[in-house]
Amino acid sequence: MATAEASPKARVVIQQCLNARLQVQPPSEEKEAEYVEVGRGIVIYLCFLKGATEDLVQKMVRSILAVRLSESEPNGKLVSVLDLPGDVLIVPQATLGGKTKGKAMQYHSNIPKMEAQELYTKFCTVCAETFEINTNTKEANKTVKHGTYGNRQVLSVVTNGPYTHVLDF
Amino acid sequence: MATAEASPKARVVIQQCLNARLQVQPPSEEKEAEYVEVGRGIVIYLCFLKGATEDLVQKMVRSILAVRLSESEPNGKLVSVLDLPGDVLIVPQATLGGKTKGKAMQYHSNIPKMEAQELYTKFCTVCAETFEINTNTKEANKTVKHGTYGNRQVLSVVTNGPYTHVLDF
Repeated sequence: MATAEASPKARVVIQQCLNARLQVQPPSEEKEAEYVEVGRGIVIYLCFLKGATEDLVQKMVRSILAVRLSESEPNGKLVSVLDLPGDVLIVPQATLGGKTKGKAMQYHSNIPKMEAQELYTKFCTVCAETFEINTNTKEANKTVKHGTYGNRQVLSVVTNGPYTHVLDF
Repeated sequence: MATAEASPKARVVIQQCLNARLQVQPPSEEKEAEYVEVGRGIVIYLCFLKGATEDLVQKMVRSILAVRLSESEPNGKLVSVLDLPGDVLIVPQATLGGKTKGKAMQYHSNIPKMEAQELYTKFCTVCAETFEINTNTKEANKTVKHGTYGNRQVLSVVTNGPYTHVLDF
């Protein structure tokens, strides 16, 4: 985790959800829009900044899936999404790198788009691999779903308390 | 806006929405839950940290309502929520002050709850007052709605691209 003094290399916003639905293919003349859906778990909004690497992605996934940000039932005790166990929805969100400049936003800290896309794909893959080898998520048939990089993220989220956290790496 | 080096005194997460619905009164034996709803506009998740003051609240509202974070129709040009004009939903979200400590979150930067509640109320009031005197929002009958501080924020958000930004003040 980056300290407040160092420039972060990635930023994520995490929200607890009851269910969420994300468009992964916009509608075309030939076919309707396609969506992915998750149940109870977390939504991860994800942005890579300058200096991010594949090694950082590994560290991020370990940290995000292990940090206790999900309320378990029936007592509300905080557990990790792996221990919940819950689903994960990953949403690419390059706007998280934005800083205000007057009334406009600037994105000078963002990593170039091609690199960001590779890191995003890696992040999704490592999350999915972790879910496949974790006993809790595997036995409960929990899944990792993700949006398509560069598309408009048409999204609906239902939560019983978003419990929003910003994590810098 | 705080620089990366200074400790922020408040943090907000802003998302563009098509509509959103927030519980403001949990269900009881006597009556059903109460909700507020907004249409197209922005959702502001709001957290006050140590050092926040009423003067800061004024500055935050001016900045948040003026920054160009909303896509106008039909060309997608970015405008402020005042110029859209759109609605605002304010969600208290003390978790935004969280920092990871191993697998747990710590909230040592958060302002004491009583002060946070006063600043939250002030923030909602100043937003509503701004909407009342702004020609765009007033003529289009746009509104500011907000959650109740300290309650569970039962929320649903529908967006055509959350366009998520984190602003530190």
